[in-house]
Amino acid sequence: MPTIHHHIAYLREALKPYRSQQCIALVPTMGNLHDGHLELVRLARQHADIVVVTIFVNPTQFGVGEDFDSYPRTLDADVAKLATVGTDYVFAPTSDEMYSVLPPPTSIHAGAITDQLCGQTRPTHFDGVGIVVSKLFNIVQPDTAIFGQKDYQQLAIIKQLVRDLSYPIEIISAPIVRAIDGLALSSRNQYLSSAERNIAPLLQQELQRLAKQLKNSEHLGLDIEILIKQSRKRIISAGFNIDYLEIKTAQLEPITAGLAKNTNNAPQDLIVIVAAWLGRARLLDNLLVTVHS
Amino acid sequence: MPTIHHHIAYLREALKPYRSQQCIALVPTMGNLHDGHLELVRLARQHADIVVVTIFVNPTQFGVGEDFDSYPRTLDADVAKLATVGTDYVFAPTSDEMYSVLPPPTSIHAGAITDQLCGQTRPTHFDGVGIVVSKLFNIVQPDTAIFGQKDYQQLAIIKQLVRDLSYPIEIISAPIVRAIDGLALSSRNQYLSSAERNIAPLLQQELQRLAKQLKNSEHLGLDIEILIKQSRKRIISAGFNIDYLEIKTAQLEPITAGLAKNTNNAPQDLIVIVAAWLGRARLLDNLLVTVHS
Repeated sequence: MPTIHHHIAYLREALKPYRSQQCIALVPTMGNLHDGHLELVRLARQHADIVVVTIFVNPTQFGVGEDFDSYPRTLDADVAKLATVGTDYVFAPTSDEMYSVLPPPTSIHAGAITDQLCGQTRPTHFDGVGIVVSKLFNIVQPDTAIFGQKDYQQLAIIKQLVRDLSYPIEIISAPIVRAIDGLALSSRNQYLSSAERNIAPLLQQELQRLAKQLKNSEHLGLDIEILIKQSRKRIISAGFNIDYLEIKTAQLEPITAGLAKNTNNAPQDLIVIVAAWLGRARLLDNLLVTVHS
Repeated sequence: MPTIHHHIAYLREALKPYRSQQCIALVPTMGNLHDGHLELVRLARQHADIVVVTIFVNPTQFGVGEDFDSYPRTLDADVAKLATVGTDYVFAPTSDEMYSVLPPPTSIHAGAITDQLCGQTRPTHFDGVGIVVSKLFNIVQPDTAIFGQKDYQQLAIIKQLVRDLSYPIEIISAPIVRAIDGLALSSRNQYLSSAERNIAPLLQQELQRLAKQLKNSEHLGLDIEILIKQSRKRIISAGFNIDYLEIKTAQLEPITAGLAKNTNNAPQDLIVIVAAWLGRARLLDNLLVTVHS
C-alpha cells in the first residue's frame, strides 16, 4: 500500500532521503481514478524510482457555477487502485493545507496560449492549473511529471510553464486511454445518462474521420473549414453542444501559421481537438495526426 | 575562488551532490557588488553549507526607458569580492540562457501588494522580479535565500510568492548596510554627482526623524499626515523628486487597517518607506519602527 500524507511538511520529509540519488516522478490528479490515471502511474513507474501521486480537487481551477462541489471524491477507492500499480506515496492535502488564503494573491498566467480553446469558456481555469501545478512541483520537487494527452491544452501550458520558470522537470505525455467503444476515459463520464453514454463515442469517431480526411486533403484538395463544418453538423445532430472543434498545429498555433513556417514541405504534426457538452458532462478529446502538405 | 557557471545545466549538476545532506543558500544579485551585497553573502554563509550567488541583470524587471543598458556590469570585480566572503558558486547566465523567448509568455503577478509604492511608477517591475526569482529558485533549489531589507516591497512580495507557490525555501531578510553618513548602499548611488552624493543622506535623516516622531505621536497626539507633509517639504527643498514617502504596517497594509486590527493595543511594527530621485539616481530607503499605540 502507498504511504498517505496529508501535510506538505511530512511529505517533504519523507521524500528528502531520495533527492540526491533517486528519480522521483509526480502524477498530479484530482482523484476519482480510472484506468487513464492508472496508465499515468504505470508510465511514472517506468521512468522513476519513487512515484508520488497527488489527489487534490483544486478549487482555483474551477470557475463560478462549475462542478467543484459535486466533483466526485473517492479517496479510499483511489488509494486501493493505486496500490495495484506500484504507487509509493499518495499526497492528499486539504484545501487549507494548500491555500492559506483563497484565492492566493499571487497568480500565474500562461499568456496567449490560454486565449483559445478551453480558455474561451473557462477564462480562469488555466491560471488555477498554473498555481496548483507550480505548488505541487515545489512541494514534491520531482525529476519527472506525467500528464495525460487528453487535457492537451493543459499539457502544452505546463510544458511552457516548465520552460519559462526553469523547472528541472521532464514532462511526459501519456496517451489517451479509451473505453472499448472509443470514448476517452474521464471522471466526468459518470455525469452521462446511459442514453448519453451510448452517444458519447461519436465524438471520437468524428475526430478519426477528420484525421483521415486531413491525411487525404493533400491530394484531394479538400477545404479544412468545410470538413470541420460538416463534422460540427453531425456532432450537433447527435445531441452535443459544441464548445469548440478545431484543427491546430501540435503547438496549438493556427494551422495557417504552421503551414507558412513549413517552407521545406516537412511532415506537419496537427491536432484535431474538441470540447463538447453532452447532458451534464463536458467531454474533451483530441487526436494527433501527421500530414504531408 | 568561487566556481563560476554560466549554464543552468552545469550549475545544477554541480549542486546535485549536496541536495540530500547539505543546506544550500541562494543570494540573487544583479552584480556590481558593494558591501550591502557582501553582507547578504556573510549572512548566507552563517545559514548554509553551500553559498550560491547569482549575478544577472534581469531584463524583464526593467521598464521602457529605465537603466537596463547602462546598469553597471562588473563581473570580474564582483567575483574577486565574493571570493573574500566565502562564496562557493557564482551563477552568471546570459539573457539567452535565462529566456529562450523574451518576454516569456508565462507571467507571475503578485496581486494587490504591487499596486502601491514602487509598483505605481514601475508597473511591470515586480512581475519581472517574480519571474526571475522563480527561475532562480527552480534552478538553484536552495534551502534558504537572502534578500536585502533595502528593497522592502520586493522582500514582502517574495515572502508572499514563497507562501503562495509553496517553495520549500526560508527567506532571510538582511539589514540595510549604510555608508558612514547614513546613505543606504546601492549600485545606483554611482549615478550621483559629488554634490548630489553630499545631499543624499538627508533621505535617511528624514526617515529617522519620522520614526522618532511616530514613537512620540502616541503621547503627543501628532497627526501622521502632517508629519509626512512636513517631511516631504524638507526632502523636496533639498533637491529630491519624491516618488513616494509613506508609513505602512510592516506587512505593507494601510496604517489605519493595521491599527483597526490591533484590538489589544499590542505594539505595532510600522515601516517608514521612501523612493526619491536625486539627479539620475532613484534612491530607496526604509526604516522599521515599533510603536505602542
